[in-house]
Amino acid sequence: MNSAVPSTEPQGTPSPSDGLLDFPASSALKLEPHLPPPPPSPAATTTTDTTKSKTSSTKPFVTLTFATSLDSSLSLAPGVRTTLSGPQSKAMTHFLRSRHAAILVGVGTAVADDPGLNCKILSPFSSSQREQHPNQPRPIILDPSARWEVSEKSKVIQLARLKQGLGPFIFTARRVEEVPEERRGVVEGMGGKYVHVEGLKVKGDGEGEGETGSGESFAWADVLRTIKEEGLDSVMIEGGGSVINSLLALEQGGEQELVDSVIVTIAPTWLGAGGVLVCPPRAVGRDGQPAPPVRLRDVSWHPLGEDVVLCGKILR
Amino acid sequence: MNSAVPSTEPQGTPSPSDGLLDFPASSALKLEPHLPPPPPSPAATTTTDTTKSKTSSTKPFVTLTFATSLDSSLSLAPGVRTTLSGPQSKAMTHFLRSRHAAILVGVGTAVADDPGLNCKILSPFSSSQREQHPNQPRPIILDPSARWEVSEKSKVIQLARLKQGLGPFIFTARRVEEVPEERRGVVEGMGGKYVHVEGLKVKGDGEGEGETGSGESFAWADVLRTIKEEGLDSVMIEGGGSVINSLLALEQGGEQELVDSVIVTIAPTWLGAGGVLVCPPRAVGRDGQPAPPVRLRDVSWHPLGEDVVLCGKILR
Repeated sequence: MNSAVPSTEPQGTPSPSDGLLDFPASSALKLEPHLPPPPPSPAATTTTDTTKSKTSSTKPFVTLTFATSLDSSLSLAPGVRTTLSGPQSKAMTHFLRSRHAAILVGVGTAVADDPGLNCKILSPFSSSQREQHPNQPRPIILDPSARWEVSEKSKVIQLARLKQGLGPFIFTARRVEEVPEERRGVVEGMGGKYVHVEGLKVKGDGEGEGETGSGESFAWADVLRTIKEEGLDSVMIEGGGSVINSLLALEQGGEQELVDSVIVTIAPTWLGAGGVLVCPPRAVGRDGQPAPPVRLRDVSWHPLGEDVVLCGKILR
Repeated sequence: MNSAVPSTEPQGTPSPSDGLLDFPASSALKLEPHLPPPPPSPAATTTTDTTKSKTSSTKPFVTLTFATSLDSSLSLAPGVRTTLSGPQSKAMTHFLRSRHAAILVGVGTAVADDPGLNCKILSPFSSSQREQHPNQPRPIILDPSARWEVSEKSKVIQLARLKQGLGPFIFTARRVEEVPEERRGVVEGMGGKYVHVEGLKVKGDGEGEGETGSGESFAWADVLRTIKEEGLDSVMIEGGGSVINSLLALEQGGEQELVDSVIVTIAPTWLGAGGVLVCPPRAVGRDGQPAPPVRLRDVSWHPLGEDVVLCGKILR
């Protein structure tokens, strides 16, 4: 359902977006088994330091989610924003965002799409929350070379200024002090920051790490440990192609277990050759033989408008 | 459901396959709106010549059907038979075959897979038909260069000999008399034949028409007219990649309306780069601009085991 819900924004606050999305509780309930544990209710929140994880796990709950065409394209071409799925699927994406502490995208997506990375949905479960703002996830940009030219005009910054989103964390291979001071100022002014992640690698000139990323260059284990260390217990990884393929390739190798849940929306269209594909490289196992394909288990399919939503876990 | 149904084959007949597949009527009913009109009941059949079509349409009802991975691969590599979908989907394929007068595959599939192209299912609708053999569709091999080396060992011939399938019709650009006499004898001995189709073109040496087929070389309008002229009112086009992509490309151009129904099974697995892809070439419209993607309308999604079945029509 994409029926616009009147904004509960106070009248004095400027708002670029009047409508909040609506996602039916019946649909949300079907997704719940595939999501991280719900956050504790406000009454249960203590006043102790919650910025560090209390659990022993060294990584957050990871949900990999994206929408493709039937021919596994995310978009018609790199940098071309392509509307694939219907309004219900968009509402679902915002519901999923409401259920994660962080959203992660690669720098390619940040540069190409200027995404908002916020949550525009109210909880489908509680009418008493209708007067509240949605829970906002922390945007994380995976930007090894720190090439994203974030500015006051960036949508994620504008939304943070409107208190409709949080300031972004930007994970980079660079030393933070190497990042241009102006960009740091913009990000930090909104409560975000640049975070140096040891394992990330900058690729050679002319080869953006967002376009041809391999699992190694994205250093997923380091990235996820850093997310956890920032006190973020769950992350929804949304794209783009390089990010998704590098994660699937690592899972295919079978040596790391990074992804807890996979939620894929498929739209009934073929985009044709030349699109940005979700198609992991053929991995090679320890024995030198081709690794088996990545298969999902505990699979469920949920028609949603014209699309279908696939939920599952990666088979170990 | 893949529970094997005991064969009703008379005891004296050798049978390479004892089991017939079972497909539940509830699932079959969901597919019926996407299928050609059912054949007339035996009582309604007249004794007049039924080998020629009685209707004014110049083409049969065309159902395009195949199974892919999430990354739109039909198989791991050309010629590598890959089990993608589950047993229920296999039963569905045989149910679909029972509802078409013909099945068509490209020569690449015939060479690589040695497919049986028969129907191993009884009607899910009528218990009185349980004692009958399934309706057998006519296998059609699209083989412009007549390079398929059909022999007594070919599965389709073996099944025809056992009366568990029909002899194949082989559509070729060659004159029938150019086809080696031995092959013609094998095919004609089973009630099949080679059929010269005017519009088909033989490609240059070293470039199999099955691997890189374009819409033009397959001459779909001519092929479908020929099928109709053979008295076959419906055809299920099953693959492989070149056949499917060339049909989708023609539909994308929007100048021909060939496909009446699309039924795609998707398995919850990524095969990874290097597979045989369903991914039509980006078509260019009459105005020189990229043609819009091929989109389906009247869409329905039906979970089937671990897979999902997508039914729809191509949007005009």
